[in-house]
Amino acid sequence: MTNDQLISEIRKKDSFLCIGLDVDLNKIPKHLLAEEDPIFAFNKAIIDATHHLAVAYKPNTAFYEAYGIKGWKALEKTIDYLNTNHPEIFTIADAKRGDIGNTSTMYAKAFLEDLGFDAVTVAPYMGKDSVEPFLSIKDKHIILLALTSNKGAFDFQTQLIDDEELYKKVLKTSKSWEHSDRLMYVVGATKAEYFKEIRKIVPTSFLLVPGVGAQGGNLQDVCKYGMNKDVGLLINSSRAVIYASNQLDFAEAAACEAEALQKQMKAILDKK
Amino acid sequence: MTNDQLISEIRKKDSFLCIGLDVDLNKIPKHLLAEEDPIFAFNKAIIDATHHLAVAYKPNTAFYEAYGIKGWKALEKTIDYLNTNHPEIFTIADAKRGDIGNTSTMYAKAFLEDLGFDAVTVAPYMGKDSVEPFLSIKDKHIILLALTSNKGAFDFQTQLIDDEELYKKVLKTSKSWEHSDRLMYVVGATKAEYFKEIRKIVPTSFLLVPGVGAQGGNLQDVCKYGMNKDVGLLINSSRAVIYASNQLDFAEAAACEAEALQKQMKAILDKK
Repeated sequence: MTNDQLISEIRKKDSFLCIGLDVDLNKIPKHLLAEEDPIFAFNKAIIDATHHLAVAYKPNTAFYEAYGIKGWKALEKTIDYLNTNHPEIFTIADAKRGDIGNTSTMYAKAFLEDLGFDAVTVAPYMGKDSVEPFLSIKDKHIILLALTSNKGAFDFQTQLIDDEELYKKVLKTSKSWEHSDRLMYVVGATKAEYFKEIRKIVPTSFLLVPGVGAQGGNLQDVCKYGMNKDVGLLINSSRAVIYASNQLDFAEAAACEAEALQKQMKAILDKK
Repeated sequence: MTNDQLISEIRKKDSFLCIGLDVDLNKIPKHLLAEEDPIFAFNKAIIDATHHLAVAYKPNTAFYEAYGIKGWKALEKTIDYLNTNHPEIFTIADAKRGDIGNTSTMYAKAFLEDLGFDAVTVAPYMGKDSVEPFLSIKDKHIILLALTSNKGAFDFQTQLIDDEELYKKVLKTSKSWEHSDRLMYVVGATKAEYFKEIRKIVPTSFLLVPGVGAQGGNLQDVCKYGMNKDVGLLINSSRAVIYASNQLDFAEAAACEAEALQKQMKAILDKK
């Protein structure tokens, strides 16, 4: 998917919501455990109920790998279901990978070619040659960790290198990499004041923003400082949407939560 | 496995060799492609031929994920085979994971509990709360990326924070984390001169050293600066060992390469 296609979908739906499909069998409704593939059954129901309200879905691969082969099958079925039924949806493998060049090439093949995700999250610690293999695939995107939403972000990401924080160094350096127009960045919502600085460095890039809701981030603040003329934001919500209820009405409850977020987004877009 | 058990195995075998099981179906002998599970067939033959020469095996998960469910099955069978037949061998999932706390817990479950690896490699970018969940499991180890063997290591890892390189900051900071006695570190062999400085910060920790052989690192130099009284090194070789031949004699050829490395290691240990 191109950036323009994603922007067009955002305009069409008045939404820049990304729903995180972080499926934990201890949290989904009990009646789904009788299904042959409870993880996929859960995801399918959530997607069916929310796809008109969201522009992106983001399975975190940890939750699937935790269930071994069953989990990997459920991940395959989920991305196949999305690509077949909703090709207009932007799909993100939240995998936080990154390795030496030939190994990153294998990860890129796995997530972007074989599974067919539109994007994969990548950690920047190993530098340029660990990221560029992911960027070589046309119409596919890398979402590079810049400033994450957890407390540990302050351990290294905000440490000063040449009078600027490491995450700014990551943003600036990555702009010089080949096909950097296919780069997006993870920026946690828990630090809305940082968005102003970030937008000076990457004014046009899409930012994937976790941490709204469960982790305490505020949508208004993020949009105030982080939105650009093409919106440029994908706001992720995982637990608050998908675990809105753990009863028979879980999919309707998820749709309700997603719609509440979409309405807030529409109001913000209307004001702009 | 405890550190003491690993050290004892190193002494018994006069070897601190780790063999990287980075299986690429384009590189393995053609006759194996007729097997039901060519990846596992290859690994089993390599393990059978080399287990008396190596103290550790390290599958890089990228190579397995690139083959989807088939790859994941082969990974499961490989670690099961090692745990069943060679419980004395130290097993490393080279996964380079790391995510917010609850997600890292899922990865720790997947690799250390369900698959049963002794260790998993983790990227430090997201800080303390992304690593500590992995450290909570008794007798399991985290191998934290410190200074990697690729060119991109110079993009961020060697940048100065408060007059010291980021990778040193990672080493120092991580020592304060809970159960840091279960931390090991990845340090690339391509920069042997750095080991002297690293040993000042982490004198007793095991260092996993990729980059000997194919990537140009020198075993003598690494040992000169990196070895401690308990050896404290795991030298990884992947391609040079496992792809020593792509003919019918591939396992014997791998054993030959592994033996050559083990003999060099024995000579170094004998001198100490």
